[in-house]
Amino acid sequence: MPETSSRTAPPTLRWVGDALTGTLELLDQTRLPGEVVTLTCRTDDDVFGAIRRLSVRGAPAIGVSAAYGLVLGVQQALAPAPGPLSGGRAEFDAALAASAEKLAASRPTAVNLFWALARCRRALSAEPDLAPADALARLLAEAREIEAEDRAMCAAIGRHGADLLPEFPPPGDGPDGELGLLTHCNAGGLATAGDGTALAVLFEAHRRATEAGRRVRTYADETRPLLQGARLTAWELTRRGVPTTVLCDSAAASLLATGRVHAVVTGADRVAANGDAANKIGTFPLAVLAHRFNVPFYIAAPTSTFDRDLASGDEIPIEQRDAAEVLNYGDLRTAADGAEAYNPAFDVTPANLITALVTERGVIPSPTTAAVGAHLAGA
Amino acid sequence: MPETSSRTAPPTLRWVGDALTGTLELLDQTRLPGEVVTLTCRTDDDVFGAIRRLSVRGAPAIGVSAAYGLVLGVQQALAPAPGPLSGGRAEFDAALAASAEKLAASRPTAVNLFWALARCRRALSAEPDLAPADALARLLAEAREIEAEDRAMCAAIGRHGADLLPEFPPPGDGPDGELGLLTHCNAGGLATAGDGTALAVLFEAHRRATEAGRRVRTYADETRPLLQGARLTAWELTRRGVPTTVLCDSAAASLLATGRVHAVVTGADRVAANGDAANKIGTFPLAVLAHRFNVPFYIAAPTSTFDRDLASGDEIPIEQRDAAEVLNYGDLRTAADGAEAYNPAFDVTPANLITALVTERGVIPSPTTAAVGAHLAGA
Repeated sequence: MPETSSRTAPPTLRWVGDALTGTLELLDQTRLPGEVVTLTCRTDDDVFGAIRRLSVRGAPAIGVSAAYGLVLGVQQALAPAPGPLSGGRAEFDAALAASAEKLAASRPTAVNLFWALARCRRALSAEPDLAPADALARLLAEAREIEAEDRAMCAAIGRHGADLLPEFPPPGDGPDGELGLLTHCNAGGLATAGDGTALAVLFEAHRRATEAGRRVRTYADETRPLLQGARLTAWELTRRGVPTTVLCDSAAASLLATGRVHAVVTGADRVAANGDAANKIGTFPLAVLAHRFNVPFYIAAPTSTFDRDLASGDEIPIEQRDAAEVLNYGDLRTAADGAEAYNPAFDVTPANLITALVTERGVIPSPTTAAVGAHLAGA
Repeated sequence: MPETSSRTAPPTLRWVGDALTGTLELLDQTRLPGEVVTLTCRTDDDVFGAIRRLSVRGAPAIGVSAAYGLVLGVQQALAPAPGPLSGGRAEFDAALAASAEKLAASRPTAVNLFWALARCRRALSAEPDLAPADALARLLAEAREIEAEDRAMCAAIGRHGADLLPEFPPPGDGPDGELGLLTHCNAGGLATAGDGTALAVLFEAHRRATEAGRRVRTYADETRPLLQGARLTAWELTRRGVPTTVLCDSAAASLLATGRVHAVVTGADRVAANGDAANKIGTFPLAVLAHRFNVPFYIAAPTSTFDRDLASGDEIPIEQRDAAEVLNYGDLRTAADGAEAYNPAFDVTPANLITALVTERGVIPSPTTAAVGAHLAGA
């Protein structure tokens, strides 16, 4: 088990130290918002366990963590005690391969995980002449680069998304002059190395509004069954001073009807070639309702989330999760005995309900297969 | 506080004893399904508290309970200790008025509550010459009559609603030959003195299907924040052998998209003159989604739920409930500190999304002000 310690507001993940003796610090998201606990990972087994238990979650954050996990895996294999690395480059490559194989098994469906591991291995196989110590430094540099790109991706999504929002809400809508932004689940800094995807848009909108003396209120669907909205999104927003109101998922329709929400912004787990987007269960009804009330519905997701092999959302596989998530609350049985459960993890929002997709490269308004293809080709 | 005791499967409510010394027993719905506890109410304050805490809930059950609460209120005012009633008819009428005023404040949106209280007062004002003891007996008789009518109302709604449902689902829809019925919150026997309103339809559909060798599956939205669907509806359905699947409210859109649901049936707390209906938060988005998927959306509610003084749903007052219902789970704080909450108890489904209203008198298809007026006038 990794060591734990408490402090105020640590980042989602942080590498501390050099390649030979450094460690990976992870914010334990299973304890939020009640406890803020940092896990210090010293081995790739520590990282494996943290991903497996959902202490770190969100596709981008998992990818970055796994890349740092490789550094720990090689440290552990070639320098289990303080001192220089043992063995030659062959031993280094074997240790890297073994660690990558181990880490790949932590979340079998996480595409970013495989992507990050493969990228690190490619970086090293491109430089076969590096001695082990230099190779380890190169591996750490690649992990740091993945992290830096992730932060830059978040920042770019935040800017592009905030550009879509009005400065002021229409007069008479909700509390005067207050821009209302609704999100679902957690597409925040906790899911990335940076400020998140959908939440990066909300943070940037709040930053701009504050600078200009305007007000933003964010609304966070609690997001049953696991309450990522109430637990994680509200935590991220409130600790950075963004006014936040939590609501039951089923109350979003009533909230939209009040006119207090001027845009809905969510993340996505997977976007098909035609712009259909799979995201946390409850996103699709939100899009239907936003459409009914003429509220723009934006999905913010990095281009790495797009899967051009899937022609439409019909081809996106939907994971059915454990019935206990619905029938129990924590360890407490809440539903009547004998009841079954329907518990899909995701639903699919059709592209024609998405006002625009927002990526790190810009915006795809009214997404179609042609528009998505042009956006992805145009980098 | 009322006394409590445990037993197996008591009724939702039951008057025990005579007018002078009787008590009202209520099944404490806040403890279900984990514990089956009966509250014995000896004062109108006990009934007020039980309604306020949602120990008894559902518009019809609240109305019946409030009527019995009046009997307790007069008992308490005129015979606080064992013995005959003190005072004359003026004191009786004053005690009745005071008790009615108290009980009316327990749930501001519950039109049945006002209706039942007004009916009891009218019954007594029609007989100004009755002495207090006879007047109290008359008051109890009126409450018993409201209860009996409620049972008959449930049975009639069940029949009229079941008549609307297809015997067999369209071939190829969901599990072959299985009729899927979705409901929200609890409009069941727990909400009435009888079999409920929406659930009476589901019970009757299941009874008919079972007799004919066909299958029905009911789907119960869990109904955040208080989980009446998972706790109460699933309890009522499963203990009577009706196959039941519980889902998160936000998963109903995905379920409707599968084609497994052939009708949505909910209750209502208040129906306006034009057919707009207020019901538990989350009903309106369900109607929007049913419309999108061409699934009939029925609201089953007794005519006592109709309020012709309200031209449309815009005039229905919406109760905002305690933020803690959303931010906590039981005693456990789940949302981040600093977050606020939006927690309306109800939303309003516009009449144009309601395929038909079902009352104890029959069916109002495609409700309009004229159709509702004719239905209510035509008894």
